[in-house]
Amino acid sequence: METIVAITTPAGTGGIAVIRLSGDNAFAIADSVWKGKSLSSVPSHSAHLGEILASDGSTLDQAVATIYAAGHSFTGEPTVEFSIHGAQWLQREVLTRLVEAGARPAGPGEFSQRAVMNGRMDLAQAEGVADLIAASSKAAHRLATRQMKGDFSRRFDVLRERMIELASLLELELDFSEEDVEFADRSRLIALCSEAKAEIDSLASSFRTGRALKDGVAVVIAGIPNAGKSTLLNRLLEDEKAIVSDIAGTTRDIIEDTAEIDGILYRFIDTAGLREATDEVERIGIDRAEARIRTADILLYLIDPTSPLPPQLDRFDDIRSRLSDATPTILLCTKSDIRPEAINDLSALIPSSGTSIPATDNAPQIISISARTGDGLGALTSALKKLATAGHDPAAELIITNLRHYEALTAASAALSRTLEAMELGLSADLIAQDLRESIHHLGLITGTITTDTLLHSIFARFCIGK
Amino acid sequence: METIVAITTPAGTGGIAVIRLSGDNAFAIADSVWKGKSLSSVPSHSAHLGEILASDGSTLDQAVATIYAAGHSFTGEPTVEFSIHGAQWLQREVLTRLVEAGARPAGPGEFSQRAVMNGRMDLAQAEGVADLIAASSKAAHRLATRQMKGDFSRRFDVLRERMIELASLLELELDFSEEDVEFADRSRLIALCSEAKAEIDSLASSFRTGRALKDGVAVVIAGIPNAGKSTLLNRLLEDEKAIVSDIAGTTRDIIEDTAEIDGILYRFIDTAGLREATDEVERIGIDRAEARIRTADILLYLIDPTSPLPPQLDRFDDIRSRLSDATPTILLCTKSDIRPEAINDLSALIPSSGTSIPATDNAPQIISISARTGDGLGALTSALKKLATAGHDPAAELIITNLRHYEALTAASAALSRTLEAMELGLSADLIAQDLRESIHHLGLITGTITTDTLLHSIFARFCIGK
Repeated sequence: METIVAITTPAGTGGIAVIRLSGDNAFAIADSVWKGKSLSSVPSHSAHLGEILASDGSTLDQAVATIYAAGHSFTGEPTVEFSIHGAQWLQREVLTRLVEAGARPAGPGEFSQRAVMNGRMDLAQAEGVADLIAASSKAAHRLATRQMKGDFSRRFDVLRERMIELASLLELELDFSEEDVEFADRSRLIALCSEAKAEIDSLASSFRTGRALKDGVAVVIAGIPNAGKSTLLNRLLEDEKAIVSDIAGTTRDIIEDTAEIDGILYRFIDTAGLREATDEVERIGIDRAEARIRTADILLYLIDPTSPLPPQLDRFDDIRSRLSDATPTILLCTKSDIRPEAINDLSALIPSSGTSIPATDNAPQIISISARTGDGLGALTSALKKLATAGHDPAAELIITNLRHYEALTAASAALSRTLEAMELGLSADLIAQDLRESIHHLGLITGTITTDTLLHSIFARFCIGK
Repeated sequence: METIVAITTPAGTGGIAVIRLSGDNAFAIADSVWKGKSLSSVPSHSAHLGEILASDGSTLDQAVATIYAAGHSFTGEPTVEFSIHGAQWLQREVLTRLVEAGARPAGPGEFSQRAVMNGRMDLAQAEGVADLIAASSKAAHRLATRQMKGDFSRRFDVLRERMIELASLLELELDFSEEDVEFADRSRLIALCSEAKAEIDSLASSFRTGRALKDGVAVVIAGIPNAGKSTLLNRLLEDEKAIVSDIAGTTRDIIEDTAEIDGILYRFIDTAGLREATDEVERIGIDRAEARIRTADILLYLIDPTSPLPPQLDRFDDIRSRLSDATPTILLCTKSDIRPEAINDLSALIPSSGTSIPATDNAPQIISISARTGDGLGALTSALKKLATAGHDPAAELIITNLRHYEALTAASAALSRTLEAMELGLSADLIAQDLRESIHHLGLITGTITTDTLLHSIFARFCIGK
């Protein structure tokens, strides 16, 4: 393969930067700019001090070149990693020099794509690498690491192989179609397919959780002014020594505070800006804010016990009406150090208040807290975690985080439904086999057993350059 | 030495990040978090794939550890460099993990400081490393590289050894002071000291140039509105395919455009904001702008030939009066495609215009250009380069870029002056030797032959962390 080159370390100035060169001519190109031991003739996994020379023969930098032989590198190709001094100017110059010497600047994710093409990892693992680089919480990191290490892929491979076996049995019948035999016992086939479908559906159902854990759990935080939103947030963040940042959203009306609490990244979205708009521009801002709120994962509504409760519950209804019905909700009765009895008033009020809270298992949890004394904080963080993971255990289960995987699983499940239907209707083996094959095809897309150039391109285009 | 750890790659997210661990226990600490080959027992300069484990034994990351044995690393100490995935979250976690395992977070420049203390490089070379990392132009990079490689240090060592020889001869006389001998021929001593002083003074005189080349040459660009400032800048930048950026200065009135032209970084400072202030706040802004202008290295004044010349020359006088007398100046007669004859009018006008241009060799150069046709651009860039380097040739000469070195050279020169004076006055060998020793002391500070903890600390505190 053509030799590609990129700066693989973060953009900016630092002590050192790493430039990676991978491809058939990596060693020859490296040697052509290198003063030191011939990099073509040193063993794999060895590091060498030398100099990178400019085209006029002057020293561009003193550097360390680390060599990885074909079959022993990340990409599977001959690879040289130059550790150079981390000046931005110098990084650009060395990159330019290597391009002049015959390498091509790598596209986004191109090293990972080669790793996949050379069988060093499968597609799901490569996507795990990209997720790992983007991971900004312990939960996201753990999910990505498992995917990168192949836990994920093995599960799909097992599932897929089982289904291929079923399909083979069915196809065997086709060869003997004249003789009207059934090698594959239909009731056994139905049981196996149902089992596979249940597993696929269970994985697909973890996607909502997975996406929230990967991108951060969006928590809409609402309540009347002075209900204690800031105090609560500060207390949560301080207690957890979490990283806090203010992200100005698409409009000035959306302010996000992000925090990692107990390994999970939360995006707390303030709804202070939600009010009746008086002019057109403000209306647009509020429309955007509401769109953001509708995609929230959790609603955290603060009740101030020192203010009359019914108007607050009216406002709660209002906010809630903007959310999807399924959005899990916590009603937080604040200032429990001042009015500890308020939670009873609130609980008493809710069933009879005429609010539109649906009487499902999605009814809001009520928690009493005091940000001042810390009372109830533990109950709140564990309730948040429980809602964020929706009962899935990120440490024990496979959780889908990738939209592409989710779509493949949904398609595989739909094809399996048709398979089951066809069997129940007693249709012929060739019709059943066709649906089953389609389901297998979709599963194969996940790990890349089946790929197309378009698929590969669209996946790796979202990677960062240098990986 | 205590084992220190830092992220050495630029801050941010990237494909990979490098964490460096250096000190007596580097291998033991690395092994305590490592799943893979024992890093204590592998050869120097070898790279190993493995896993960094969290304290609960789970995988933090798949990583490559590169090992450098004591005496063969940048610091001279046992060193491990972990190449990990470049997620910011992960970088922090791995750093924290290594600190938990017994390493201490490194201070700024602490790896370089150890390299100096372990004799891997001298002080001037270490400062060259810091300059190299900060270098943002070819000229700055070249000066830093030469300093890092020791060209600089060798020159000082030779000079210093010659002076130590002289001092030894003088001190020999002290041992025989009863006998009134002169081992050191005074006229020969005077010649040698004068020679050394000339060399030191020449190096010191390169500092103004060196600092400009290192930090960027500040060019004040002035002229009446529509004299063609923007067109000129765009043309210069476009022609050179340089990196352009707009830096808002300390006030809105100072806008800098930086560009690397022919290897030299220029900071073009627009003076559009200079006008009579009407209120206090604006006055403060203008005071700051004027302070910035007074430290400029070059004045580039544009004359619009399609406007009356005398008022423009008045404004030129005004700007010039704010600059140091020694500021080199170029008068640029623009739009030569429209009025090519204007340069003659201008040249004719200047001697008789009553402007305060001093009739020294610092008189302004006049260049005619057309940003539209490109006429005269070459003359301008070579004039700029000549003024920026002030006759020094960065490719051939040693040029001082560091204020600390400049101060040491100035002090060494002053002590040599006193030495010469003492010899001319026929003072006794002990007095002469004392001044000579002082001069030698100051030279020794440059490469760190003589150091103090305070000196070391103040130097390395300005380095970046991880280097």
